[in-house]
Amino acid sequence: MSTTSTKSFRFAGIQLHVTSDKEVNLRHAVEKVKEASKNGARVVCLPEIFNSPYQSSLFPQYAEDVSDPSSPSPKALSDVAKEEKIYLIGGSIPEREAINGEDKIYNTCLIYGPDGKLLAKHRKVHLFDIDVPGKITFRESDTLTGGNDVTVFPTEWCDIGVGICYDIRFPELAQVATSKGSKMLVYPGAFNMTTGPAHWELLLRSRAVDNQLFVAGVAPARNLESSYHSWGHTSVIEPWGSVLSTTEEGPSIVYADIDLDRVDDFRSSIPTLRQKRRDLYELVEK
Amino acid sequence: MSTTSTKSFRFAGIQLHVTSDKEVNLRHAVEKVKEASKNGARVVCLPEIFNSPYQSSLFPQYAEDVSDPSSPSPKALSDVAKEEKIYLIGGSIPEREAINGEDKIYNTCLIYGPDGKLLAKHRKVHLFDIDVPGKITFRESDTLTGGNDVTVFPTEWCDIGVGICYDIRFPELAQVATSKGSKMLVYPGAFNMTTGPAHWELLLRSRAVDNQLFVAGVAPARNLESSYHSWGHTSVIEPWGSVLSTTEEGPSIVYADIDLDRVDDFRSSIPTLRQKRRDLYELVEK
Repeated sequence: MSTTSTKSFRFAGIQLHVTSDKEVNLRHAVEKVKEASKNGARVVCLPEIFNSPYQSSLFPQYAEDVSDPSSPSPKALSDVAKEEKIYLIGGSIPEREAINGEDKIYNTCLIYGPDGKLLAKHRKVHLFDIDVPGKITFRESDTLTGGNDVTVFPTEWCDIGVGICYDIRFPELAQVATSKGSKMLVYPGAFNMTTGPAHWELLLRSRAVDNQLFVAGVAPARNLESSYHSWGHTSVIEPWGSVLSTTEEGPSIVYADIDLDRVDDFRSSIPTLRQKRRDLYELVEK
Repeated sequence: MSTTSTKSFRFAGIQLHVTSDKEVNLRHAVEKVKEASKNGARVVCLPEIFNSPYQSSLFPQYAEDVSDPSSPSPKALSDVAKEEKIYLIGGSIPEREAINGEDKIYNTCLIYGPDGKLLAKHRKVHLFDIDVPGKITFRESDTLTGGNDVTVFPTEWCDIGVGICYDIRFPELAQVATSKGSKMLVYPGAFNMTTGPAHWELLLRSRAVDNQLFVAGVAPARNLESSYHSWGHTSVIEPWGSVLSTTEEGPSIVYADIDLDRVDDFRSSIPTLRQKRRDLYELVEK
């Protein structure tokens, strides 16, 4: 069932049911990654905070030291990537790092290659601190620290940029990842019942068209027993901006065949990336 | 019928029927501006290239020296802005300027204040040079020169940024105009039958949400007798990204009441403009 060639590969986004039991979450995630691989996916992505409830106060409790490869979440991800010989974008997990004796917690995406080795690590750059009166208030910065890097990792088909959830609201991150050569952007993300219907698909589509590449957003399934209700709607958008593949709020695996000719065709027919007026403005990476 | 207050005003986008007769186009534009004003609009916008067919080879023939206030198009725009005491965003016209004895032609938007004085001038920055095989090929650069400025002009309600058509594909222009204080962006623009259905509304909505402001796109009506078929669909988008007001392809005036509280509310509840990570990236204006 594989559609793999030098110019195309199958992507799978796993809209995982996430509980408060980390062990159950990891076991369930590994099962679903294996299922996606059996169905031909060569690049698989899990959702944001897939091993813990999405709740600021709980992040320290679920957090792991990912520099220790025997930590349960990194080990589960590495093992299944190697076993299935796939690229695995590990959604995100709360990460603990001791810096000068003080613990910092990050919202971190671990990315493994087909040999099970850690290829890249993205720490959510833009923390989700919002207050929409009467609708939703959330402050990741109560417990989290933001990352400091734009993340792009190589595959045998193309480079892929990674952001986490709220990162997608910042077009600059996508633009920098594009200028570094990405032909696909992947956002593990848990939008909510206010911002999800309004902005999730719009943001995915606009990043695709503005940067002329594939974009995937991978969300947890909606769990009404948790305090945070995810919008779901894991989706893959093609460069021209239409929705290639999507789902609603329940547990699901969303597949899409990523044909990189579509990136090249769009970039040559409407060559906006070459037509930017760098004499008037320039996005500088620091 | 005016809804004018310190925090809101009525906007009108005129989806004009454009012919090959400049005099008819100007007379018709003035009539429609007066109609919009009578209906309470205090900021009125005409479409891209509203006094000439949208055809590169014809731009030199229709072009005017806009530094001469007796040129027909500047005079008509200035007179009606003064008579109706409105802000008039004059869509765009082909502009001729002699530089060192050589004529340059620009796609230029003239903006007049309620006193009839020229407030600002935007020359299309990004020239529309595209080649979508089997669909549409267009080369503005055959006859036009690109402008060199990001344009924002003041009104008594808020600052308004202006781009022309293809300029909307470059998020940087909207970002710079936003950083200069705009709470509304207005794009006179003639998308076509290929890019219109795919991207017109998506681009308007994404500029609105990314920059948390009102966005209007004002197109000519579709004229099947001309060589270029405009998508039409003049639209106004509110900051949260929904379509406030729109139309289809025929001649029309699209009205929208612009309530600036919606800009301030969005910017305070989801404060992305403050949360940008200028330590990691920065859009520099040159």
